[in-house]
Amino acid sequence: MKLNLSPYQVLTISFSSLILCGAFLLMLPISSQTGSSLSFIDALFTATSAVCVTGLIVVDTGTYFSTFGQTIIIILIQIGGFGVMTITTVLAVLIGRRIQLRSRLVAQESLNQLTLGGIVKLIKMLVKTTLAIEFIGGILLSFCLYPDYGLKGIYMAFWHSISAFCNAGFDIFGGTNIFHYNTNPLFCLTIAFLIIIGGIGYNVTEEILTKHSWEKFSLHTKVVLTATVILLVIGTVVLFILEYGNTDTIGNWDLGHKALGAFFLSATSRTAGYTLMDTGALHESSLFFIIILMFFGASPGSTGGGIKTTTIAIIVSTVNSIIRGKDDVLLFSRRIEYDLIIKSLTIFYIAASFVVVATMYLCLTEDFSFIRILFEVTSALATVGLSTGITPEMTIYGKFVLILLMLIGRVGVLTFLMAIAMRNKKKPHIGYPSERIGVG
Amino acid sequence: MKLNLSPYQVLTISFSSLILCGAFLLMLPISSQTGSSLSFIDALFTATSAVCVTGLIVVDTGTYFSTFGQTIIIILIQIGGFGVMTITTVLAVLIGRRIQLRSRLVAQESLNQLTLGGIVKLIKMLVKTTLAIEFIGGILLSFCLYPDYGLKGIYMAFWHSISAFCNAGFDIFGGTNIFHYNTNPLFCLTIAFLIIIGGIGYNVTEEILTKHSWEKFSLHTKVVLTATVILLVIGTVVLFILEYGNTDTIGNWDLGHKALGAFFLSATSRTAGYTLMDTGALHESSLFFIIILMFFGASPGSTGGGIKTTTIAIIVSTVNSIIRGKDDVLLFSRRIEYDLIIKSLTIFYIAASFVVVATMYLCLTEDFSFIRILFEVTSALATVGLSTGITPEMTIYGKFVLILLMLIGRVGVLTFLMAIAMRNKKKPHIGYPSERIGVG
Ligand SMILES: [K+]
Ligand SMILES: [K+]
Repeated sequence: MKLNLSPYQVLTISFSSLILCGAFLLMLPISSQTGSSLSFIDALFTATSAVCVTGLIVVDTGTYFSTFGQTIIIILIQIGGFGVMTITTVLAVLIGRRIQLRSRLVAQESLNQLTLGGIVKLIKMLVKTTLAIEFIGGILLSFCLYPDYGLKGIYMAFWHSISAFCNAGFDIFGGTNIFHYNTNPLFCLTIAFLIIIGGIGYNVTEEILTKHSWEKFSLHTKVVLTATVILLVIGTVVLFILEYGNTDTIGNWDLGHKALGAFFLSATSRTAGYTLMDTGALHESSLFFIIILMFFGASPGSTGGGIKTTTIAIIVSTVNSIIRGKDDVLLFSRRIEYDLIIKSLTIFYIAASFVVVATMYLCLTEDFSFIRILFEVTSALATVGLSTGITPEMTIYGKFVLILLMLIGRVGVLTFLMAIAMRNKKKPHIGYPSERIGVG
Repeated sequence: MKLNLSPYQVLTISFSSLILCGAFLLMLPISSQTGSSLSFIDALFTATSAVCVTGLIVVDTGTYFSTFGQTIIIILIQIGGFGVMTITTVLAVLIGRRIQLRSRLVAQESLNQLTLGGIVKLIKMLVKTTLAIEFIGGILLSFCLYPDYGLKGIYMAFWHSISAFCNAGFDIFGGTNIFHYNTNPLFCLTIAFLIIIGGIGYNVTEEILTKHSWEKFSLHTKVVLTATVILLVIGTVVLFILEYGNTDTIGNWDLGHKALGAFFLSATSRTAGYTLMDTGALHESSLFFIIILMFFGASPGSTGGGIKTTTIAIIVSTVNSIIRGKDDVLLFSRRIEYDLIIKSLTIFYIAASFVVVATMYLCLTEDFSFIRILFEVTSALATVGLSTGITPEMTIYGKFVLILLMLIGRVGVLTFLMAIAMRNKKKPHIGYPSERIGVG
């Protein structure tokens, strides 16, 4: 089987077409509750945000859009989520195979997936698994929402289950009505676990479901799971401490709810963007910390964005090796090859450059404080969707920059670099006892 | 010759003693114009700022300190400047020799400098060259200051020549009186060139003075000179554009003075910290841009701080190689070894981590906007000394953190990592056609 279109082109073309179709449908009067028509830039923004599973909004999804409009949005989210997951998963398999061929460590299972039949089977499994998880999430959320909203609650439960699993962060409660559930353990934990499962990537989910012991897991799965847990814990602890006394967020809650709120904020920050409290009311040091969590993001092959947990793991491990004066960078007793280290470190710089340039530009066009702009830019590039509330008030230039960042964050920093890695013709390294993991 | 004390210990002990002596002297009533005694934290802050050639101030050097106090400060600056230059230069030679021995590319000239006599000769030359440059700078500045201040102007001229060459950024004009010279070409250009020469490092200055052709220059010198020029030009152009219409800074000046102002700001931002305009009045996007320039800093073996021009050159070159799918990272047709690349990339993360943690902490203790705190923290760690004006109003916790950052920025991110690199026992790599340059 041969791939003649570059994956970068496939993704760009299909995403752009999907976004334009979506924008057109969202502009129809039938999409709005009042029968009015959305401006092109706002429709384009919403469609991009949905397809790129970001969650930044310029009009309130719950109060502006009709059920028709909301359905369009959730379909865009689901297609966007599937698109990102399948393409990145297939790419990871392709890249993995090429590298394994090069390094003479051919894994039969990867080769199997490479036939057209294998890919179709992979995608079928991915869709089945996704729908099953979203179904379970929908059922659980129904227990929270049916009592309050009746039958509409069931629709809302499944809508938000999809949105959460795809790490999209959209909600249709209307305004800040979702905040009513910010101390409801079933609601928070269901959404949080959908986010986390969606964020670890399909490869990892599949390994967890098929192999049942830590020893059998691939290096990739071990790194993803460890990094995810560490980031969740650090995020929860730091945000708990920083916001402990902030009465506009978790300050007035009792201890258990405070911990739940900090945990949810930690989970949602690394890519989902579900907002259960007023992000704009967070302490500035929390905003800065969340900017860093957003920049780190979720794991490769998932619906999440950012520079990825594996990239962070390699960076931390490298810094640790240098400080301790060790020659090799190890993760779970496997040596990470130099070129993978350098690629990881490079992904960081490229993503950071985008953030810096976009922030400087928006500081000129927009009239908001620096940290809010930095927050918004990082949120868009890492396709997180959290906002201090400035998105709807932005100029058309600002909105356009955010649209571009969402696209780059989705297509670019992720797949663009993968496409580069595939073009990278290397002489085979023979005999190195190293193993590759996916990054960026 | 054998070095038994770790260079890290030497530098830490000598710097700490010098700072404590300085703080004691600055607390004496004779040091102040009014005969009052400075609080310990402020004296410690001023002494640290002087010895670490930073330039952050908590009391105005020109109006608070007597001539005695000012003389103490300029002596601390000169000793601090010499200390940093000699220790880092000697270290660079030592490290260079070890690595060259390892890679069997022994350069005779480096070995020569390694004898005790060689080091003494090196330091003598360094002191002579420094004093000669500072003397020339003093003469040139006298032309500006004698007409306005008479004989006191000559004292001020030499004081500021030392402060500029050492990249200390202290001034004794009193308050914002130095702003009167912000469109005086002789003053601005003399200070700027002292800053630039001080910032390229003694190794490079010596090569320029002894070898007279680009081809004969070492890779280190070529990289430092190229990176310095590129950063100066980019800095000038970007700041010119960003501040073009800002009437609180260069907005009301004519085109030539605007260019001069932008050039001076670009030169001073990368480590000197001389302030010729109200830094607090700069546009937020300029502040953010200057934060990045400060973080980049000057060159190794100089009085400047930051993560160093050579580190940036390696990072940019690495990103470029990855994007173009090349295997090797080249600078001037020399391959950069993987371990040096990884070390450079790592320096960036370590410095960035310090900035992030300190900024988050100061966001909690101080009541200033996020960008001002980020600016202050970066300025301290990179020993720049620019400030939006918040330093004197900081809490004692904030001042203490800045003191630590100045010390870490001076001793740590620079020499600490060099000490680490020396401890790093590597198996010799034989036959690689690569060449090392100093970083961070
Ligand atoms: K999202
Ligand atoms: K300085």
